[in-house]
Amino acid sequence: MTPATLDDFRVVLSDLPTAEGAAIAGALARNGQLTKPPGALGRLEGVAIWLAGWQGSEKPRILAPQVAIFAGNHGVVAQGVSAFPPEVTVQMVANFQHGGAAVNQLARVAGATMTVTALELDRPTADFTQTAAMSAEDCAAALRAGWEAVDEGADLLVPGEMGIGNTTSAAAIAHALFGAAPEDWVGRGTGVDDAGLARKASAVARGVARLTSREPLDVLAALGGREIAAMAGAMLRARSLRIPVLLDGFIACSAAAVLQAANPKALDHCLAAHTSAEAGHGRLLAALGKEPLLNLGLRLGEGSGAALAINIVRAAAECHSGMATFAEAGVAAG
Amino acid sequence: MTPATLDDFRVVLSDLPTAEGAAIAGALARNGQLTKPPGALGRLEGVAIWLAGWQGSEKPRILAPQVAIFAGNHGVVAQGVSAFPPEVTVQMVANFQHGGAAVNQLARVAGATMTVTALELDRPTADFTQTAAMSAEDCAAALRAGWEAVDEGADLLVPGEMGIGNTTSAAAIAHALFGAAPEDWVGRGTGVDDAGLARKASAVARGVARLTSREPLDVLAALGGREIAAMAGAMLRARSLRIPVLLDGFIACSAAAVLQAANPKALDHCLAAHTSAEAGHGRLLAALGKEPLLNLGLRLGEGSGAALAINIVRAAAECHSGMATFAEAGVAAG
Repeated sequence: MTPATLDDFRVVLSDLPTAEGAAIAGALARNGQLTKPPGALGRLEGVAIWLAGWQGSEKPRILAPQVAIFAGNHGVVAQGVSAFPPEVTVQMVANFQHGGAAVNQLARVAGATMTVTALELDRPTADFTQTAAMSAEDCAAALRAGWEAVDEGADLLVPGEMGIGNTTSAAAIAHALFGAAPEDWVGRGTGVDDAGLARKASAVARGVARLTSREPLDVLAALGGREIAAMAGAMLRARSLRIPVLLDGFIACSAAAVLQAANPKALDHCLAAHTSAEAGHGRLLAALGKEPLLNLGLRLGEGSGAALAINIVRAAAECHSGMATFAEAGVAAG
Repeated sequence: MTPATLDDFRVVLSDLPTAEGAAIAGALARNGQLTKPPGALGRLEGVAIWLAGWQGSEKPRILAPQVAIFAGNHGVVAQGVSAFPPEVTVQMVANFQHGGAAVNQLARVAGATMTVTALELDRPTADFTQTAAMSAEDCAAALRAGWEAVDEGADLLVPGEMGIGNTTSAAAIAHALFGAAPEDWVGRGTGVDDAGLARKASAVARGVARLTSREPLDVLAALGGREIAAMAGAMLRARSLRIPVLLDGFIACSAAAVLQAANPKALDHCLAAHTSAEAGHGRLLAALGKEPLLNLGLRLGEGSGAALAINIVRAAAECHSGMATFAEAGVAAG
């Protein structure tokens, strides 16, 4: 049953399922018997074993990945924080629906289904420098939208986003949860100039100064966009179903950070897909304790970096689950 | 027509086809119109434009990649340089043929065909610490085997290898071509201990001290394995057909290094797929001037790291060739 209120989501966050220890043990044993020198597949070996735990199978596979995109509009654009006008959000949603965006191509290459959830684009969140971005009810509704967008049959989830202004919202969440300076978290987003960057830092500082609670879901409501809340809801639903998650860039990781702040084990089912070129992402990944798979300078959002990494995770699973053992192949084990 | 002698290969190397400038110009113009902020796809944008030049198309695709594996045996194993016995080479060739190796899984995930060429496994090269590894005729025969293994219809080539002892051969080639110390080029390969590592460095030093010519194909004959020569032949054939190439790890890059030493532009059609955990690979990539796509700690050979990168290159091509332009999608261009 979908949680209804923020308090319902807090209850879910307080009691999360864990990976299956028996599947991890089985996968570790299998890994030691495969026809390769020990450790020779590097990072892929750990990825396969992590997958085994969440899929509850000694031989994990990626057969039904889902890219779930969420779009929202942001009142904070009134502060001059984006290089693109806010109507681009709805235009890009249409582009997703017609197959023309980068993430459409990446989902196709990954053999992933793609869902697009537009969240009240004609009703932007409030400007968080002036008042809370969302009421508790609006935030819970966005979390629910994310929760309900997850396909129960998916075996890997990529939450992605679109929302002009949302790097400012993500930076504010990161600043509220992890401290440092506003300037440490703001970046050029879709391409603001130096003056725009200064306006972003100012908006972040003012938004965080207004906070009356640092409880993670309160922070999400006060500073978040609907698409950020929806990604958090989707990640939490994936956890409840033991579906592993690939984290995309700065904005997706700000959603993940809210969950981790509420429960330090909340991201055990999540792997960081890549390091974005957006300035604060490396710092945010460090705060989450996540080592990314890729570092290719992407800074697009849309779940693009995580969609790109699906085939890396699939390759890890296929090597682990498809390779012969030394005994099966009649190869001398060194 | 396949070149016959080392001198024939030298002639090919002296006059190489170049990328198509018109396709590059068209791809650059297209890239600026796609529905994303400028540069937001990071490294993928440059990969797509590079592909465009070699495929001679403003909209490149990866539809028919080939993984071409070459296997050879090495007399230098008499020096105690490998953690595995030499009979593993033929056992692993059987494993490739039966689909049980890591690279089989990776080629399948990448939708690539895979060819396996075993090069006189019952006739190892000579121990290069004692005499030249190959005669000029044997070296030319191995180059020809690589040349002829390339599918003329391939649109991306991954040369890979198997050969117990071949990191020592690759290290000797790198030391001969790029200097530094033998210790800078030797690594643990499939897992030698400290004493084995010292034996590798000694073998490299003695092999290079015996050289009577530093001409690149002479170095290849004196120190190379047949599979290294075959990879060089395959890379050269790909160039003659303008097929782009993904370079795998330390051993594949030692083959590439021979070509680059003969002609500084010989690797313009090659992209480095990954940084291997084998000790000398980072140094070798720097010597080749190549920035790798992936860094996941693989050190398996078999073309595995490059096969893993095929879907990254495909994703770059699909984004570039499949995305809508701002005008097509009706999105405001910032």
